Amino acid sequence: MSTKPVFVVAGVGNGQGTGAASAHEFSKAGYRVALIARNGDTLQKLADELKQAGGEAKAFPVTSYEQSTLHATFAQIRAEWPGAPIRVAVWNAGDAVWKPFLDVTEEELRKTTDTNIIGSFAFAREAILSFKDLELDEVGKRGALIFTSATAALRGNKTTSVFAAGKFALRSLSQSLAKEFGPQNIHVSTAIIDGPILTDRSKARQGDKYDEWSKNENVRIRPESIAKSYLYLANQDRSAWTWELDLRAAHEPW
Amino acid sequence: MSTKPVFVVAGVGNGQGTGAASAHEFSKAGYRVALIARNGDTLQKLADELKQAGGEAKAFPVTSYEQSTLHATFAQIRAEWPGAPIRVAVWNAGDAVWKPFLDVTEEELRKTTDTNIIGSFAFAREAILSFKDLELDEVGKRGALIFTSATAALRGNKTTSVFAAGKFALRSLSQSLAKEFGPQNIHVSTAIIDGPILTDRSKARQGDKYDEWSKNENVRIRPESIAKSYLYLANQDRSAWTWELDLRAAHEPW
Amino acid sequence: MSTKPVFVVAGVGNGQGTGAASAHEFSKAGYRVALIARNGDTLQKLADELKQAGGEAKAFPVTSYEQSTLHATFAQIRAEWPGAPIRVAVWNAGDAVWKPFLDVTEEELRKTTDTNIIGSFAFAREAILSFKDLELDEVGKRGALIFTSATAALRGNKTTSVFAAGKFALRSLSQSLAKEFGPQNIHVSTAIIDGPILTDRSKARQGDKYDEWSKNENVRIRPESIAKSYLYLANQDRSAWTWELDLRAAHEPW
Amino acid sequence: MSTKPVFVVAGVGNGQGTGAASAHEFSKAGYRVALIARNGDTLQKLADELKQAGGEAKAFPVTSYEQSTLHATFAQIRAEWPGAPIRVAVWNAGDAVWKPFLDVTEEELRKTTDTNIIGSFAFAREAILSFKDLELDEVGKRGALIFTSATAALRGNKTTSVFAAGKFALRSLSQSLAKEFGPQNIHVSTAIIDGPILTDRSKARQGDKYDEWSKNENVRIRPESIAKSYLYLANQDRSAWTWELDLRAAHEPW
Repeated sequence: MSTKPVFVVAGVGNGQGTGAASAHEFSKAGYRVALIARNGDTLQKLADELKQAGGEAKAFPVTSYEQSTLHATFAQIRAEWPGAPIRVAVWNAGDAVWKPFLDVTEEELRKTTDTNIIGSFAFAREAILSFKDLELDEVGKRGALIFTSATAALRGNKTTSVFAAGKFALRSLSQSLAKEFGPQNIHVSTAIIDGPILTDRSKARQGDKYDEWSKNENVRIRPESIAKSYLYLANQDRSAWTWELDLRAAHEPW
Repeated sequence: MSTKPVFVVAGVGNGQGTGAASAHEFSKAGYRVALIARNGDTLQKLADELKQAGGEAKAFPVTSYEQSTLHATFAQIRAEWPGAPIRVAVWNAGDAVWKPFLDVTEEELRKTTDTNIIGSFAFAREAILSFKDLELDEVGKRGALIFTSATAALRGNKTTSVFAAGKFALRSLSQSLAKEFGPQNIHVSTAIIDGPILTDRSKARQGDKYDEWSKNENVRIRPESIAKSYLYLANQDRSAWTWELDLRAAHEPW
Repeated sequence: MSTKPVFVVAGVGNGQGTGAASAHEFSKAGYRVALIARNGDTLQKLADELKQAGGEAKAFPVTSYEQSTLHATFAQIRAEWPGAPIRVAVWNAGDAVWKPFLDVTEEELRKTTDTNIIGSFAFAREAILSFKDLELDEVGKRGALIFTSATAALRGNKTTSVFAAGKFALRSLSQSLAKEFGPQNIHVSTAIIDGPILTDRSKARQGDKYDEWSKNENVRIRPESIAKSYLYLANQDRSAWTWELDLRAAHEPW
Repeated sequence: MSTKPVFVVAGVGNGQGTGAASAHEFSKAGYRVALIARNGDTLQKLADELKQAGGEAKAFPVTSYEQSTLHATFAQIRAEWPGAPIRVAVWNAGDAVWKPFLDVTEEELRKTTDTNIIGSFAFAREAILSFKDLELDEVGKRGALIFTSATAALRGNKTTSVFAAGKFALRSLSQSLAKEFGPQNIHVSTAIIDGPILTDRSKARQGDKYDEWSKNENVRIRPESIAKSYLYLANQDRSAWTWELDLRAAHEPW
């Protein structure tokens, strides 16, 4: 009997967005789910939901995304399910900061680089170390590392100096890793999410327009649809895999 | 009972590459298959294979990809299966020309623009006209138009002046259409194929290295895997669809 | 005494835009000026202006930008100034077509590809043939070929399917040539013009806003400033030359 | 009598590269030169050279590129030349780190982000604060901020995970600022340096090939030529200015 593989996701926000939807999607697809985030309460609630739906899941709350922390966390994940291979890792952390350049404080900038750069490098390191000595799976991979990104990874703009810097750096990391570890059958990819995602935070952001907006499937992105694309990326075989794809709603202006 | 939809592909080469694999993939997924190409023999052979495998397929040989020709061809397709909606169209035509710039003749250049630009515009026109008055399908689309592209769409290079010009123009068309027709729930996307595809032409191209190369799934792209990505693109729902993705083998240097 | 070099420009519109300003700039910098365009009247008027300002200039009207035509035209240029090296060539031709995709006729599309692709290839061919056997000049070049481009070379958009296809293809040509002929000390570059240029056509385009707009140097591009950038590109030495730069007015939103 | 403006450059390495050449170029063009770097000895030597050549220059050594440090440094610059406007600022700092991803330590990564991100943001902030209340100069600008970048800003690659992350982030910052501050007549631009620069460090890097390489103006970039492009960028008028240009030697493969 083959061992159920492990899916790790870092960054699950309030449990309603891309990270959480990915956890559900991979759980249904037969993965054990390790949830990493800086918000312990949400994390435990999501783990419970996954278990109630018949999956195996565990919350691994962290206080930061430093290398030593993530190193210890991945060790805990391996200890939780001994012998189960970590096959898919999704980096979904990172807050969106939009503000005029002169209003950005050095502290905010450091917080962003700590998550988006120090954190993403550390997570990628643990994922790759987890994959590199595994056997090839049935589609010819040792593992798949997926980064959630945004249009700000492609274009700087007014008020995005901080946000875009983090996303550009993340895209660069993703491309460097794809080139360095492809020859070791480790698949690294990025999804450029272009547009607003429907979560329970949308209500605050959309204001009066929320009711109409939330019912219109042409204008907002369903987290479940992003999650499906992640499962698709993880399942692509080694003869034709994708580094980067964009995802947007049908009526999104771009 | 719902009517079986129609899948149209233009450009099936010698029946062993991306166009043919796509025809098989969509046939298995329940589509009627309309095959368009300038090579009648190959086309009929492929249609026969599809029928033997239990599908519905018909060859529509053309002498050129001019607008009047493709307009007539799409009319024939509709006449062949009255009432069946054309839901997916794949543009896969176009020869690869690599030669030093000063060796390119105006005739070669015209042949390339005739296929890659005049032809792709005409095919896109017929696809969009076929889609635009259809009802939304179960994933919220009127239809999906997919372009096969190549890395030469992103970078000009020595000896690629002609080839890249065609691919750049095709990418531009694809992006313009994605933006113009997304709001009408028509999904336009592009696959950037990066690297050599395994077909029966590979033997000539790879020479002495063919045997080793053809057995190594890490270095060459399987047309069937590209075809799977096209089915995935066609099935993406309207809340999160992709304009462009790249596809390459695991060990491809890039 | 060193021979005065020749500057060739194709596409001078109504004699008020980038092509004409470039002719003036290079004339002042000591070049003989060969003017190529499909509008004989404007062409002769511009040649006269250049001569009145103390330069040497001649109009070479053409009926098309086909290879045979441009080949003959470059022969005429060499015959006009025997022994004078053609050192700089600027491709500035091409009309802007913006219209909804379904309104584009095949004839319009062919007209665009004839100029933007067939024409630009033919012009580039003659320029490179003119440069390739020259001695290096004082900045280490045999010659400089400059393409006028636009933001539509980087992004397709609604109503730009035709225009962008031509500009994408031109950018691709420019990059392929830069890579192929750099090793022969031929410098190929592109200027991406982003925004409206002040010409005598602006009045029609800007309508009621014309007066205010034309006086505001922050919002519209002066052709003379583009021309200066072309002279700068032509003068860059071989140790550090540019393939592509963008040019826009200070307040242009982008 | 108009006041001589001030040129500020951060990052002058060992006094032989882009930063130092820029200091010389702007000094000759009539600017006072403020030199910022973490290497006090080199800095003073360069200041002395500039003064011997007839310019005004002063060294401002720093221990880090933190915001408080650079804020104090810019205050010192203003105090040094009271009433003289800071008109041009060049960010040229940042070490190149190339190593396999798994060999990168968190400390190295932090060092890189401290310079490339925290540092570049802080420098940009001081430059923009210096410019924003100035009168327009004769080309319609309040000031020009120029970033030295590299091809790694456009592409991640094997062994460039750290280096490219910094350069991607810097490019993003540059684009965000260009869009945010263009409307205030502050010109932000980037030069993508593609290839090896001739400095006194080249000997170690090129090894046995050094002699041949250093004499071949087709294969290595002269810092003086980069510096000329910076002066050109600073002098572009507000009707047509450049955000980004690339610079490479004629025979550089790319």
